[in-house]
Amino acid sequence: MDTQRTGYPARLQANHTFIMNPLDPKEFRRQGHMIIDFLADYYQNIGNYPVLSQVEPGYLRNLTPDFAPLNPEPIETILQDFQQHIVPGITHWQSPNYFAYFPSSGSTAGFLGEMLSTGFNLVGFNWLSSPAATELESVVMDWLGQVLKLPKAFLFSGSGGGVLLGTTCEAILVTLVAARDKMLSRIGRENICELVVYVSDQTHCAVQKAAHIIGIHPKNFRVIKTMKSTSFTLLPESLLSAIQTDVQNGLVPCYLCVTVGTTSTTAIDPLGPLCKVAKKYGMWVHVDAAYAGSVCICPEFRHLIDGVEDANSFSLNAHKWFLTNLDCCCLWLKDPASVIKSLSTHSVYLENSATDSKQVVDYKDWQITLSRRFRALKVWLVLRSYGVANLRNFLRSHVEMAKTFEELVRRDKRFEIFVPRNLSVVCFRLLPSAVAKIGNGKVQNGGFKNEDVANEINRRLLDSINGSGTVYMTHAIVGGVFVIRCAIGATLTDTKHVIMAWKLVQEHAYAILNY
Amino acid sequence: MDTQRTGYPARLQANHTFIMNPLDPKEFRRQGHMIIDFLADYYQNIGNYPVLSQVEPGYLRNLTPDFAPLNPEPIETILQDFQQHIVPGITHWQSPNYFAYFPSSGSTAGFLGEMLSTGFNLVGFNWLSSPAATELESVVMDWLGQVLKLPKAFLFSGSGGGVLLGTTCEAILVTLVAARDKMLSRIGRENICELVVYVSDQTHCAVQKAAHIIGIHPKNFRVIKTMKSTSFTLLPESLLSAIQTDVQNGLVPCYLCVTVGTTSTTAIDPLGPLCKVAKKYGMWVHVDAAYAGSVCICPEFRHLIDGVEDANSFSLNAHKWFLTNLDCCCLWLKDPASVIKSLSTHSVYLENSATDSKQVVDYKDWQITLSRRFRALKVWLVLRSYGVANLRNFLRSHVEMAKTFEELVRRDKRFEIFVPRNLSVVCFRLLPSAVAKIGNGKVQNGGFKNEDVANEINRRLLDSINGSGTVYMTHAIVGGVFVIRCAIGATLTDTKHVIMAWKLVQEHAYAILNY
Repeated sequence: MDTQRTGYPARLQANHTFIMNPLDPKEFRRQGHMIIDFLADYYQNIGNYPVLSQVEPGYLRNLTPDFAPLNPEPIETILQDFQQHIVPGITHWQSPNYFAYFPSSGSTAGFLGEMLSTGFNLVGFNWLSSPAATELESVVMDWLGQVLKLPKAFLFSGSGGGVLLGTTCEAILVTLVAARDKMLSRIGRENICELVVYVSDQTHCAVQKAAHIIGIHPKNFRVIKTMKSTSFTLLPESLLSAIQTDVQNGLVPCYLCVTVGTTSTTAIDPLGPLCKVAKKYGMWVHVDAAYAGSVCICPEFRHLIDGVEDANSFSLNAHKWFLTNLDCCCLWLKDPASVIKSLSTHSVYLENSATDSKQVVDYKDWQITLSRRFRALKVWLVLRSYGVANLRNFLRSHVEMAKTFEELVRRDKRFEIFVPRNLSVVCFRLLPSAVAKIGNGKVQNGGFKNEDVANEINRRLLDSINGSGTVYMTHAIVGGVFVIRCAIGATLTDTKHVIMAWKLVQEHAYAILNY
Repeated sequence: MDTQRTGYPARLQANHTFIMNPLDPKEFRRQGHMIIDFLADYYQNIGNYPVLSQVEPGYLRNLTPDFAPLNPEPIETILQDFQQHIVPGITHWQSPNYFAYFPSSGSTAGFLGEMLSTGFNLVGFNWLSSPAATELESVVMDWLGQVLKLPKAFLFSGSGGGVLLGTTCEAILVTLVAARDKMLSRIGRENICELVVYVSDQTHCAVQKAAHIIGIHPKNFRVIKTMKSTSFTLLPESLLSAIQTDVQNGLVPCYLCVTVGTTSTTAIDPLGPLCKVAKKYGMWVHVDAAYAGSVCICPEFRHLIDGVEDANSFSLNAHKWFLTNLDCCCLWLKDPASVIKSLSTHSVYLENSATDSKQVVDYKDWQITLSRRFRALKVWLVLRSYGVANLRNFLRSHVEMAKTFEELVRRDKRFEIFVPRNLSVVCFRLLPSAVAKIGNGKVQNGGFKNEDVANEINRRLLDSINGSGTVYMTHAIVGGVFVIRCAIGATLTDTKHVIMAWKLVQEHAYAILNY
């Protein structure tokens, strides 16, 4: 309805008393139960949806009115529109056949935590605004830190502490600002253009973005090349050599991001040796374990973060592989004071005696924003509802499924496992030799190299798989090679889905290779 | 239980099959219904809780085990602990007797939107990751922009566009980076230390924090003084004079934040005239209408943002006064391209043909982080469930209640309304003359001035009110004067709560003045 042109009835205009209660307990109960049933049904039937949405750009504009409604609509109508218009445009990250990017790890416990957080709807910027929000966060960050066997120096029960942010991008921005200010306090603020940030060519783009945001000169963002022969990990000798060149040029090494489980291939940078190099130059080392951090609760995988004791900060996304639903990034700091120094604010209207006493944590000073949701509830509910032993087994089951998928790929000689599988992600492709027939045709017409053809065919294979709607996988390009990633970790995924996914890959490969 | 020392049973260690399904529809349904009932009961009985939590720092550490549980616990136990241990540490932002800071505006529709978002748990970084998430966001941002009568230049249906972020702090950081880069592209990146950011002494501390984060030199963060005689608004002539001095000193004016509804007293900066000054110098003007923006959907309040056509960006927090639950900041941009230029990232694994076609919005480039929740659902559900006409009346009802409170204060000659009430926040205090008796005693003992005594007594009055647990209000200090803020807008607040709150203030004032 056109509210702009028609306005609204004079009767309503004159009536200043609100005619309904948007938090009426009876309506809340009725509608809340309705949505729970809606979502439970959704999980029950989730396998029936195409995993990757198949809509065209602009599809929704044509299905929605041009103007917001003037008058209330019943929840039944809205939910019907949701099912008919919104759901077809959703890519089903919770589908058992979702193998794209990294998982978006949902669970009943994570959902309940978000419900309680949203229902109480508190704004926990400092301790006083809701003491439980701050204190529970400190408790669960210590709990999870202990399960990960993080050194005491990262825990409140030691000399550090943890905080829940939205995403790893925030964790990187927060630590980068602290690192910058720490260094500038030594060399003078006017020398900001001399600071250098180090990453590998496999590091998440979040670091480049954050470095740009905080004013690191683009020419001082050092991207170090990795190689297939060393599984696309950042080599300490490459780092050292880059640093030495910079120092010789009068630049100041400031920050290193080490990745445990890169986005493309889950490469594990050698944390210990890299820290040793960085330490010599007084740099801040952040460990981005967004994906792989969660699995380090299993003793057999804990070695992946050996050396963390020499880092300054460590983060993982619990919403990726720890059942907390989006968003929930866990960041531990060895020296929270350096972050607080950079990010604290003082507002008269937030003054209170608890803060003055310095007995409490005010998390607003550990993050970019002032307001913050009660995310600790999700972590608390997940840890308590499932227990550490089950959580370990849950993560192991994904690694086992990835082993199964890997084994299936290996058995088919037309395919290769492109880089050694570390955890629950398998990077594979059709071999150049397998696409030679198609390749020869192309070579005659356009002069492609074998590898180019393989890239093209693998891209076509992936599009074909995803176009089926039956599964969803994504790609990476590493060392110039297009590989298909099968990322296992959606909560509902079981071995049968993984086997089915592989069969589908084979069917589509067959169709392409024999067209 | 001590998972670190005891480890876990060999039986579980060997069993790699996960023994339960964290998204089992049956359990999801059972537990989901349980939480809905829990929250509905909470809203029903919310008046029984002390509004401001009365716990002491560290209270929760003593109530929680030192280690995360090894084995699962039933939801019933967890919920019991939540009620017994967590709820007492919560400040009840949804209480009808909550008058602190600004409201945290919750509703059934906002809650349902968050449930759906959390249940589908998609990660909408770009269009392809879930087309509906992006497209619905564009739709609701245009809907709300139209209701606010924003110029077409801010809408997708014009030449601009809107985005949903978490909080205003993000909106400011995003626009500040874009403004910085726009200016540096003209004057050269090495001149970052010459950029100046302008605010008033009433501007939210978020701007100072964001300016620090992006590398604005602290000496170039210009805080312009406001005065009581002009209701603590930023005067165009003060801005102009500050700019002229800076320009004479070779500095470069970059960014102005205009506030429509300041945090302390809801002062309304004169947007139009300020834009005219800023425009002469090619500055970016951001309008922070975090609190007051929502009420501009009412025609009679729309004039508060007259002049917005000359600004570059405009934001409001729908979670403050528009029923969307935390978090939900609406940001409209006249020139999204300038933000995208600063914040876009390129990652091979996110490449897709929809992005290549340039037919779609990829919201990751409109914000700090990569991952993002499906916040548009909350705005969509609120607009449809309540309708624009009811929403207008809902906001009006809060302004009416504030008028009632103001009138009650005016009738009591011991009190004053410290600054003219603009919307739903009343700033008041006990007059120096009323505390003269106590003051005289103090003057004899310690040489206080009348105003100092008034500040001290008003602070004591506020502590006394809040200590009762019956209501919660907060303070501001403006022009050296301590004032009590009564911020009306909690969803469940009705006129009777406002009248009760005033009676409570009077009772406590009586006790203090006649001790």
